[in-house]
Amino acid sequence: MLKKKLLSILSVFALTLCGSLAFAQDHQVSGTVRDASGAPVIGASVFEKGTSNGTVTSLDGTYSIRTSPDAVLSFSCISYKSVDVSVGGRSVLDITMEEDTEMLNEVLVVGYGTIRKKDLTGAVSAVSSKEFKDSPVSNVGQALQGKVAGLQVIDNGSPGSDVNIKIRGLGSINDCDPLVVIDGVPTDLGLSALNVADIERVDILKDASATAIYGSRGANGVVMVTTKKGVEGKGRLSVTSEVAFQRATNVPELLNAAEYAALNNEMMTASGRNTNPEWADPSSLGEGTDWMAELLQTGIRQKHTVSYSGGSSKSHYYVSGGFLDQKGIVSSVSYRRFNFQANTDAQVLSWLKFSTNITFSADKKKSGDYSISNTMSALPVFSVKDELGEWSGPEGNAQWYGSIRNPIGTTVLNTGSTSGYNILANITGEVSFTPALKFRSTFGYDAKFWFYDSFTPAYDWKPIAVEESSRYESSNKSFTYLWDNYFLYDKTFSQVHHLSAMAGVSAQWNNYDYFNAQKNIFLFDSIHELTNGQKMNSIDGNASDWSLLSFMARVNYSYDDRYLLTATVRRDGSSRFGPKHRWGTFPSASAAWRISREEWFPSINAINDLKLRVGYGVTGSQASVGNYSYLATYKTGVYPLGYDGTEQATLYSSTLSNPSIHWEEVAQTNIGVDVAMFSSRLTLSLDAYWKNTREMLVKASIPITSGFEDTSTTYANAGKVSNRGFEFTAHSVNIQSPVRWETDLSLTYNRNRIVSLNSDVPYYTNQINNSYVTRLAEGYPINTFYGYVTDGIFQTQEEVDAHAYQAGAEPGDIRFKDLNNDGVINDEDRTTLGNPNPSWLYSMNNRISWKGLELSIYLQGVYGNKIYNANNIDNTGMAAALNQTTAVLSRWTGAGTSNSMPRAVYGDPNQNCRVSDRFIEDGSYLRIKNISLSYALPSDLLRKISIESLRIILSCENLATFTKYSGFDPEVALNGIDSSRYPIAKTFSLGLNINF
Amino acid sequence: MLKKKLLSILSVFALTLCGSLAFAQDHQVSGTVRDASGAPVIGASVFEKGTSNGTVTSLDGTYSIRTSPDAVLSFSCISYKSVDVSVGGRSVLDITMEEDTEMLNEVLVVGYGTIRKKDLTGAVSAVSSKEFKDSPVSNVGQALQGKVAGLQVIDNGSPGSDVNIKIRGLGSINDCDPLVVIDGVPTDLGLSALNVADIERVDILKDASATAIYGSRGANGVVMVTTKKGVEGKGRLSVTSEVAFQRATNVPELLNAAEYAALNNEMMTASGRNTNPEWADPSSLGEGTDWMAELLQTGIRQKHTVSYSGGSSKSHYYVSGGFLDQKGIVSSVSYRRFNFQANTDAQVLSWLKFSTNITFSADKKKSGDYSISNTMSALPVFSVKDELGEWSGPEGNAQWYGSIRNPIGTTVLNTGSTSGYNILANITGEVSFTPALKFRSTFGYDAKFWFYDSFTPAYDWKPIAVEESSRYESSNKSFTYLWDNYFLYDKTFSQVHHLSAMAGVSAQWNNYDYFNAQKNIFLFDSIHELTNGQKMNSIDGNASDWSLLSFMARVNYSYDDRYLLTATVRRDGSSRFGPKHRWGTFPSASAAWRISREEWFPSINAINDLKLRVGYGVTGSQASVGNYSYLATYKTGVYPLGYDGTEQATLYSSTLSNPSIHWEEVAQTNIGVDVAMFSSRLTLSLDAYWKNTREMLVKASIPITSGFEDTSTTYANAGKVSNRGFEFTAHSVNIQSPVRWETDLSLTYNRNRIVSLNSDVPYYTNQINNSYVTRLAEGYPINTFYGYVTDGIFQTQEEVDAHAYQAGAEPGDIRFKDLNNDGVINDEDRTTLGNPNPSWLYSMNNRISWKGLELSIYLQGVYGNKIYNANNIDNTGMAAALNQTTAVLSRWTGAGTSNSMPRAVYGDPNQNCRVSDRFIEDGSYLRIKNISLSYALPSDLLRKISIESLRIILSCENLATFTKYSGFDPEVALNGIDSSRYPIAKTFSLGLNINF
Repeated sequence: MLKKKLLSILSVFALTLCGSLAFAQDHQVSGTVRDASGAPVIGASVFEKGTSNGTVTSLDGTYSIRTSPDAVLSFSCISYKSVDVSVGGRSVLDITMEEDTEMLNEVLVVGYGTIRKKDLTGAVSAVSSKEFKDSPVSNVGQALQGKVAGLQVIDNGSPGSDVNIKIRGLGSINDCDPLVVIDGVPTDLGLSALNVADIERVDILKDASATAIYGSRGANGVVMVTTKKGVEGKGRLSVTSEVAFQRATNVPELLNAAEYAALNNEMMTASGRNTNPEWADPSSLGEGTDWMAELLQTGIRQKHTVSYSGGSSKSHYYVSGGFLDQKGIVSSVSYRRFNFQANTDAQVLSWLKFSTNITFSADKKKSGDYSISNTMSALPVFSVKDELGEWSGPEGNAQWYGSIRNPIGTTVLNTGSTSGYNILANITGEVSFTPALKFRSTFGYDAKFWFYDSFTPAYDWKPIAVEESSRYESSNKSFTYLWDNYFLYDKTFSQVHHLSAMAGVSAQWNNYDYFNAQKNIFLFDSIHELTNGQKMNSIDGNASDWSLLSFMARVNYSYDDRYLLTATVRRDGSSRFGPKHRWGTFPSASAAWRISREEWFPSINAINDLKLRVGYGVTGSQASVGNYSYLATYKTGVYPLGYDGTEQATLYSSTLSNPSIHWEEVAQTNIGVDVAMFSSRLTLSLDAYWKNTREMLVKASIPITSGFEDTSTTYANAGKVSNRGFEFTAHSVNIQSPVRWETDLSLTYNRNRIVSLNSDVPYYTNQINNSYVTRLAEGYPINTFYGYVTDGIFQTQEEVDAHAYQAGAEPGDIRFKDLNNDGVINDEDRTTLGNPNPSWLYSMNNRISWKGLELSIYLQGVYGNKIYNANNIDNTGMAAALNQTTAVLSRWTGAGTSNSMPRAVYGDPNQNCRVSDRFIEDGSYLRIKNISLSYALPSDLLRKISIESLRIILSCENLATFTKYSGFDPEVALNGIDSSRYPIAKTFSLGLNINF
Repeated sequence: MLKKKLLSILSVFALTLCGSLAFAQDHQVSGTVRDASGAPVIGASVFEKGTSNGTVTSLDGTYSIRTSPDAVLSFSCISYKSVDVSVGGRSVLDITMEEDTEMLNEVLVVGYGTIRKKDLTGAVSAVSSKEFKDSPVSNVGQALQGKVAGLQVIDNGSPGSDVNIKIRGLGSINDCDPLVVIDGVPTDLGLSALNVADIERVDILKDASATAIYGSRGANGVVMVTTKKGVEGKGRLSVTSEVAFQRATNVPELLNAAEYAALNNEMMTASGRNTNPEWADPSSLGEGTDWMAELLQTGIRQKHTVSYSGGSSKSHYYVSGGFLDQKGIVSSVSYRRFNFQANTDAQVLSWLKFSTNITFSADKKKSGDYSISNTMSALPVFSVKDELGEWSGPEGNAQWYGSIRNPIGTTVLNTGSTSGYNILANITGEVSFTPALKFRSTFGYDAKFWFYDSFTPAYDWKPIAVEESSRYESSNKSFTYLWDNYFLYDKTFSQVHHLSAMAGVSAQWNNYDYFNAQKNIFLFDSIHELTNGQKMNSIDGNASDWSLLSFMARVNYSYDDRYLLTATVRRDGSSRFGPKHRWGTFPSASAAWRISREEWFPSINAINDLKLRVGYGVTGSQASVGNYSYLATYKTGVYPLGYDGTEQATLYSSTLSNPSIHWEEVAQTNIGVDVAMFSSRLTLSLDAYWKNTREMLVKASIPITSGFEDTSTTYANAGKVSNRGFEFTAHSVNIQSPVRWETDLSLTYNRNRIVSLNSDVPYYTNQINNSYVTRLAEGYPINTFYGYVTDGIFQTQEEVDAHAYQAGAEPGDIRFKDLNNDGVINDEDRTTLGNPNPSWLYSMNNRISWKGLELSIYLQGVYGNKIYNANNIDNTGMAAALNQTTAVLSRWTGAGTSNSMPRAVYGDPNQNCRVSDRFIEDGSYLRIKNISLSYALPSDLLRKISIESLRIILSCENLATFTKYSGFDPEVALNGIDSSRYPIAKTFSLGLNINF
């Protein structure tokens, strides 16, 4: 039976591809295609039905085609309804096409309601499931990368972890993540907990006009996720399967054993130390161990989703179950997730509608205990296991052999896993009083349980033994409750005045608690339940909560679809704000002018819609305000007191009370223009924004006499940051038929600047190897790199002597610039070295479809940012017994041998590895983010075997990356520092989607 | 608006009650009512439509009624479809009534399918929501009490705790709870987690024929719970609210301060001790403190459920949210539960149906730290708090003042609560290959998280201080997965051969783990997060799992609905069974003969259905088999060894391996007869059963030389228990109209006997005050009381001297019988004292309805069991400084003063309190379990205000109990011992049910 089915599928496939394309054409038909207003429709496709014979209308809407006299011509054009007309022997066929109002009425999901795209006055972008359905991604965040102008997405690489999303630049030196709202419920449930196949659309609210409805949480934008719903009609069973293979996009090449031994000998000699007598002939050591190859593997991921959906005129359902299993590219890492989604709505009574959305996910993240940096630094001269089959480790002179514990041994033996169980559910009742007036009440429930569990056996490997085995367990739970109540009003007066309004109240509250315990010393490594542990090590636990009460209202008014006004206000009272600032009000207003609706606007097809948008608003961010920041905190402890050191219980103050602390504030102005041209075949949007953050939390100066040290920082709402930029998106239908070719372009420019820290003293941040790498300073972008400037290599002692005094310098060492010309190279010679924030984000997607085939080529990139390659400090430093990348093969070995890679010298007397532009690289890249090729088998043939549609998808994510960056991948942390990160993967996938 | 609505509701109410009942009647109509076969229909009601004028048909089916000539007569009778006929001036009106096939086709839920009641060959009882919708109960288990013959239900009293259910007697000396299956998923989720309002029906599978489909878990019966589903048609919004008030059914009266002091003086004097000089004049102490009154309060419970449901021809939905909040009758006890239920089904494709059932509940049980026995024993001479406002406590001579810590203080200060979160969900896909053949696959998920949390502050009350405050937390989680796959076949051949069959496989597996920790010493009682604790006290944690793989099949065959056969077999492989007995097979067969379908059976109405049922089968019970019982277990520990006591890690064996351990087995024979009489107005069922348990786990004798002590018992499958009994149920419609009066009767007789323990030595069980109260012995019922037999009171020293030697006896002490006539009263004089298992369970329900009014009076009782009133050991013992019940006021104070209540003497030299029939009381009771009065407002009037129905319910649970038992309540633990139990409550409730 199955075999028969397979055979028919295959034959359908073959038939379609080989089907003849030529038909008899002996009759000439021509005519003009116009819209309802009489304007010519440019670029409409004209097609002889059932054949590939077709043409497109010209700039005056005319067409001409050879066809058979009894053919049926099919006219189609974006934003118009398609028309089929029988030629019936006629030679002139003028057509009037109706606008497809459904298309014009495309609806965007904004907070507490929806808005038709044409009524929009703010900056909102939407990504529908069509745009990511073929992306081989684990979570929807990865699929958003590049899709929305103004949205910066950074993947964390590691399976099961969330992406980092920033909207319109870094809005704060503190937490500036956007608010995530899933089916109307603001939640801290990560996007990675959702099954991508269950997501219908993602709407990004960017400017204050759009985000003000989320008040004190809207400052950094809002990501609105909407899950799928059932639709009326025949039920549908959908099966989606994907198998993907993953490899790291790039792995830096490291020295082999011979090369390392030679280097070590050189380091020893240069620093006046003894070389290793065993390494007298380095080349005899050969290749040695490739530790990275031991750690990394081909990752395999499979995703399967079965869903069923449908509905009647009164009720709809969508139910889905999903499974994702991922073997990481790091061997100790794996991820497994089960998803269940059930969405229903029902018009229970004529005046009462209910809807429910339930998302349940259970996942297990095995992170293991791996270290990219230790694995890179592990010496190739050791084997993974010794002759006895035990894990090897360095022994003896650490200057030769280093002191890194066997990184593969810990990866294999130490375990660590997080099990998570998430319920996100909401139920909404909607009462209709009149056709125009509705009341809606939503109760949302967001429950999260997660459990961390790790075990480390005792072992006696070199160089440092772990003497006690230990088991650690923690139990965490968080509950967030939401209760929204609001009225919705929507009415058109005198046919031209359209008024819609929303007003209501929202309450949200959360409680969270955890406890954990560790026991040490287990008799057997394989039996390590806590009850078997012999020594208590630690017990900890605590609880916290927060709540938010909000009043909000929004009015949208439009006159004749021509003049549009939106005003929004939200008043938030938060338990996190200090008693002096418990309540904040966040207003916004915006207006739009659809110039093309003016009577005087020429009725030309070249510009069929033109809209100007202006908006301003003030929103807040409370993410950086701790739950109890406004209170003084105290700790209890036990201290030995008195002459005999009797232990006494103590209570001591740990932070000062801070009754004025409140939200950070963003005032944002947005100006945008939307243009639709050539019967909407080309649409353009341009937005410019001025986003000024104020009241940003910065460290407050506390007199040292208060007794409060640096460790208990007190914050004040006193800093300022600005982001200015513009966003450009374009969508064009380049060819309509028989091949359809669409292009999406997106371009974002952003300039980030710290305006004030309320202090002339910059903050030094991001410490690596005891040096601060970045700096927060007024007038500079957030996380600006700060350090020394290199000036080549000292080739001779004369050059050293001629240069300003640089402690420890010898020929072969790096020459640092004496920026202040004081004749000494010291801290005063540091300067800003670059900006980790890209100036430009860009992407281009081309989607070409022909019959059932669809090819999508998606390019994405960033430009203008720098990366501090911190891995290179250890791995090109040539200063200790750590393995190095092959870049050091071109090191300085005598005058003239190199002017960029210094000499190898143990101990780094010149501090060649100090924070300098030596480790700063250009982070710009252009990526072939995704190429997908899919084939949909013809539906009329599939129907014979009871299948509605069947698609096969071949896809590749991160196929190629063009960059000058030398590390693993230029997609590094937001602060631009690349340090021991989980590698970004290149993914090849094969997918199948069957609908019954 | 609301006021207006209320007024209209009230006026509707008034109108209905006062509506006139008399109408003009001047036309005589008579006739005969027959069924389709021509047999007279007896007792059919004949009614003039729209009036209260009516009559019933006589034994020959005839009727006669005076009516108006243009009236409409309405004929109705149970199990027939009602008929309305216009008189149209006729004076003779013969009627033929059709059988109501829907009624005849009443369907029972059995494992993996359903069966029409008429096709049933085994013993299955059903309770539909109609039968408990008005019961003011917190969980459905309480509502089942008495409703099903053969089902013994014992309420635990305490809010949020599960009832104890036993089916057809105690099937084992070990765990013999029935299996609970909720919506097809076997689960250990207690019934108390469900919202009663969400339950559609409960089916009880009793005999082996019915339970064999659950194989190794079916031996003790199965409770099948089915939740509500939506039905096609207009949607429905239902709101149910109930407020209830609760008091303990009975509180034993205790001595007041004056009485206690007098008693204490007497105890002291009698034992030759000094009396308390402060109590020289006991009457001056007055009433003192009524500690029980301080502990108990009026409990208040509210329950609210909002549900909506509906559906189209293709899909149905039922969604409900419930809230229950209960303040216990013990002041530290409270319970709060949230329920969410969402059930949907959808015919997605013509050949594919899906259904989902999701139950989510979150509850919080605050148990506090109370002790009924300490509160009863606390001395009335102390006040609750002392003059300084501190909790009082006994100080000084414990012979006078006792040593019980202030029971109200600990109740108020110590906290303990359990938060539970339960998800029980299943999704079923059903594929129809042909109309007769279906395949069904169910995936079930049962996740439970629960967290216990307690805190005890330090305090220095008398007599014993708690020196360290302590906080304990535990985290527990359990996951059970189920995957059932089976085929269903149902077809009728040649119109008379009806064959239905089921065959498939079921896999279920569970994993459970917990961890907990305690820290002691907190600086402030009000701040006791674990992180604030100063001393680690304990850490523990462990995990376990089990799995079950099963193959099962069932065939039902019927010939002409006359001869019915059912054969069932299940083969279970359980991870719990020893390797030698991993797989067990459990077969059953049963047959039924519908004698009334025979052609020769007279077509009389007096007996319209007669069915004989016979069944036999073997089922198993694996509940008592531990997850790893078949393995030897080892423990790890630390012991000081050697001369210097160096602590060494040790591993020691704690139990022996037991590779033969397997399920307990029950072979059950059932013979039943079902009779329907007088057009099914009277239905009777009688079942007799022989239920023989074998292979019961009993202690195996292990040679002491093995080194394994009693503490690590090894079990062998070697015991036998028998239960024999019969069950009788009757349902009658006594009057049909205008008043309808129905009666349900249920009567159960069971005799329980231990047949073999594989040992002549009985087991002594249930230790109280260092004495065993019950005994398991061959030939006796389980938990038979065992002890001395009293023979009145020694009135004089002569009587003491004349009696067998009884150590410590003096006049006023109890005379114990010298049963073995050896002249000494010792252990040899003990005998069996009674059986805690009732011989008879009975209930009667009368439901009387007239128009919208419905009155239900429900009586329930047990007969023939004994209770060991263990509370009385302390509280009538008069042997220590504990308060006593007022029963001791009739104590012996000199010759002839009492022949039942002994003298008061400190220290009880005669051991008056030894285990004897002194504390054994008759546990029989008859309870007015429930009286409910409900009124449904007339629907035609309600419809005007858009309400479909509105009912008001006044109900009282446990209204009065007729019993000789002197303790709180005769509903005590299954073992018949009443010791410090949470009191059973009497509940008055007011409920409201509105459907829109």
